[in-house]
Formats: sequence, C-alpha cells, structure tokens
Amino acid sequence: MKNLGYYNGEFGEVEEMKIPMNDRVSYFGDGVYDATYSRNYKIYALDDHVDRIYRSAALLKIDIEMSKEEMKGILYEMVNKMDTGDNFVYWQITRGTGKRNHVFPGGKSNLWINIYGKGLVDFTKKISLITEEDTRFFHCNIKTLNLIPNVMASQKAKEADCFEAVFHRGDRVTECAHSNVHIIKDGCIKTAPTDNLILPGITRSHLIRICNEKGIKVIEEAFTLDEMFAADEVFVSSAGAFCLGAEKIDGKKVGGKNPELLSLLQNSLYEEFLAETNI
Amino acid sequence: MKNLGYYNGEFGEVEEMKIPMNDRVSYFGDGVYDATYSRNYKIYALDDHVDRIYRSAALLKIDIEMSKEEMKGILYEMVNKMDTGDNFVYWQITRGTGKRNHVFPGGKSNLWINIYGKGLVDFTKKISLITEEDTRFFHCNIKTLNLIPNVMASQKAKEADCFEAVFHRGDRVTECAHSNVHIIKDGCIKTAPTDNLILPGITRSHLIRICNEKGIKVIEEAFTLDEMFAADEVFVSSAGAFCLGAEKIDGKKVGGKNPELLSLLQNSLYEEFLAETNI
Repeated sequence: MKNLGYYNGEFGEVEEMKIPMNDRVSYFGDGVYDATYSRNYKIYALDDHVDRIYRSAALLKIDIEMSKEEMKGILYEMVNKMDTGDNFVYWQITRGTGKRNHVFPGGKSNLWINIYGKGLVDFTKKISLITEEDTRFFHCNIKTLNLIPNVMASQKAKEADCFEAVFHRGDRVTECAHSNVHIIKDGCIKTAPTDNLILPGITRSHLIRICNEKGIKVIEEAFTLDEMFAADEVFVSSAGAFCLGAEKIDGKKVGGKNPELLSLLQNSLYEEFLAETNI
Repeated sequence: MKNLGYYNGEFGEVEEMKIPMNDRVSYFGDGVYDATYSRNYKIYALDDHVDRIYRSAALLKIDIEMSKEEMKGILYEMVNKMDTGDNFVYWQITRGTGKRNHVFPGGKSNLWINIYGKGLVDFTKKISLITEEDTRFFHCNIKTLNLIPNVMASQKAKEADCFEAVFHRGDRVTECAHSNVHIIKDGCIKTAPTDNLILPGITRSHLIRICNEKGIKVIEEAFTLDEMFAADEVFVSSAGAFCLGAEKIDGKKVGGKNPELLSLLQNSLYEEFLAETNI
C-alpha cells in the first residue's frame, strides 16, 4: 500500500477509511498519540514511543487494554503492508466510543494508525522560526489530540514562511508547536525541564543521552527569549524532523556561533537512526 | 428517528454514522460546536447559538461556507425527522479534511449534527459541586472541541457524586466544566466578565437581560473562591441545564440565603423557553 489507515483491526487507504461518529475524538479530542519513522521496515525507537503513549494515556486515565507487545505487533504488521519500508508511522489511542457525554464512556479504547511516505528533513539546512505567546493548557507533558493552539501557531509560522513557532509564556521559552527547542551557550546545551509545560521529547532524551556519553554539559533549566536570541545556537528537535538549527527568529539573525557542536549532535542522532534501522 | 447523526448531507442513527478518518477533528480536535434544546420541533434561541458558532469559527479562522440561514435550514430539516419534537440539538463545524498536517488543509469545513432525546433537568433540585484548578488553555471564549480538561473535571465531579466542577485559576473562579457559574450577594448577581477565560454563555446572556429588565443589578466582575463560599446563592447556567442552584461545594454547605431571587431567575428563563417553543 502507498499509505495506510487502521482503526481497531480494519485498514485501508487512509483517504477511504471511516471511523464511528461517536468515537470520543469527535466531540472532545479525547485521546493521545505518538509517531516515529520506519526505515527498511524497521520502526525507529519504537519502545520509547510505545512507552510514551502508555504514559500519556495513563495520565488521562485512558486504559489501553492491549499489551505493549501487542501494540508493537500491530504496528509492525501494518508497516509490513506498505510498498516501501521508509515511512512516517503515526498512531493514536482514543477513549472509546459512546453517545456524547463528558464523563468517561466505559468500554474499550480505540487504536488508530496512519502510515505514509514522508522524507527526512535535510538537517544541513537552517530553519527560520517565529515566536508566539504560549496560550496552551497546562498538560503539555501529555501528547494529546487537543492541538488547536498548535495548529494556529503552525499556520502562522507557515504564513511567515517559517518552519516552526517557538512558544513562550511571558519571558520563558517553553517549546515549539510540534518540536522541543534548545540552545547552545558556551559549549553547553540548555533545554527546559520536562514539567507540565513541556513534552518529554524522545529526540530530546536521545540528545541528552548523546551529550552525556560525549561529556557535553546539559543544563535542564528554562531559558528566556533574551537568552535564546543571544545563544550561540538555537535548535529544535522532534521525531519528525530530528534536529534542525535555526538561523532566524522573527526575522532576526540568531545562532551560527557553534556549528561544530550542532553538527556533532545532528550527526550523532542521524547515525543512531541509520544504525538502528539498518538491514 | 429516535436519534440522528448528520455529516455533510448524510444522516442516520448516530451509532451507525461514520466520518472520514482524515476529518481534522481526528488528529487535532480542530473544530467548534454549539447546542440547544428543541421543543415542539422548535429550536430554542437558535439565532443566538448560530451566531455564536460563527463567532467561534471566525476566531479559529475556520470558514463556514454556508450562510447562517442555510445552517438553520439544515438543523430544522434534521429536527423534523425526529419521532418527537423535544430533543437536544448539538452541532459542530470542523476544519475540513486532509492528510494529517498541523497547517490548514484548505477545502471546505464539515458540518456535523447530533440530535437525541434529553429531558430538561429539574431546576427545583439543588446540585452539589466540586472545585478544580483551571488548567485549560487561554481560549475558553471559543467553544472548541479541545475539551480534555473539561472531560477530566466532569469525570472527577461524577465520581464525587456532583453535578459539575467549578474551575478556578488560583483564587479566581472562572466557570464550570460545561456551565457558567454565578453568585448572588446582597440582591446583586455577580458573574465573571467574558474575557478569554470564560465562554460567553447564551443562558448567561439571557440571565443578564432578564436582570436588566427586572431592575436586578448585575456586576460583571471576577469573583474569588472565598466570595463564592460566602455568597447568598451560587448557581450555574448552561444551554443544557438552564439554571441550577448549588447547595454544596466540596462537601461544604453554600447559598440558600436568597431562594426568592434564584427562583425568579430560574422561572423567568424557563418561561421564556416555554413561550418561544410553544405551538
């Protein structure tokens, strides 16, 4: 298949797939998701992503009745139906199905999958960003389907011909609309701690591990807009785009003062991806 | 029909209805809704609710291609298919259909309708409430489908055998999980102003109009938790439950000191509903 949609055991081309009107997603966005790449029919960092979707679900008291092994099995079964082995693999769990009512419906949760071709972003190219006041809720540590502020900020970034929007709550930089954001200053990495304003990014955690292995200091502290504009490098990370350096924010030049360290991180991440998904 | 689901011209029993996987609701909760009662096949305060859903959509830059008259026509067409004329009428607009991507997909928005029997709440009965820190986003003036915090609070209220959860941001009472909340003190009504933390409730606006007509003073100012606990009456309002007085919050007795004024408001609202939906 060229792309694939899956819903509770049924699958087909995503454009043809239908889901019940009464899935809880329809009235409340009541669910959680995760996503990663596959390469050579191998799903990258799958354990990390499966662990996270179970954590996200638990924080919303959504029971996932299947085991993690079953979930991984279904994801692999679907990836193996694709024409090529290189894809983006997205899946979500919603809180069951029932007549519209805020309170939990009881019954089983629903598993959705989307698989489609998506090339890796060229990480040697620099990106531009905009800043945007972070008006999201206080559960950003949970990877939920309540994404309207992220949608609005992403659209604003696109209209400004930028890759992403950097959210900030007052002076404090939090994260981006669909990435984490970090800075390099004086040879150290600074990244916000994963409190309730920040998604615990899998790529972020890989970056921190790589830094620890290589003796690069990581400071897990919130940083300000001023710190970001004055940083040696500003970069974003996500499962969809790995690690990208910024050259402009709100039209002002940023970073560019420690390309060696930024490249080291980018290459290390990419090499891990290639090694884990090799045939 | 006993209940009805509608999606872009198709309709049937809501449990049988299916919607495209790629509706933007599925990945982002990207839509807005409204709801009211019908009685005798007449839809109550329909202009108010239609005006509001267009305002909600505009705030999210969702284009509703049909006119308000067309929307009302479709709602009436569907209400007229029901076996009885007394129902709850819920509808929503989502931002079109397309492959998962944060940025706007282009193309037309989608109209959904749900119609089902739902009795009026007995407003002579007192309700119990819980309080809950308001961790929602900063767009509560828009009636969106990003409702996870409302779902979580409603479930918590139900588990405490309560009707609703009263949200507060620190000391400031905002609103409830699916109602506005107001107090009576010294013969005046106090209700939060409709800033970005408060949904501009239709029932709330009817209450204010009724107060103005009857010479009852309304103070549109935020009030604190302490003020709420010390108020002469505490009451909630919504399109689904009209106006209900509270007797307990977090297990503590509240209100009960101005039942005449509370009843006057409740009866006035109910009489308007009966008059507008009379045959």
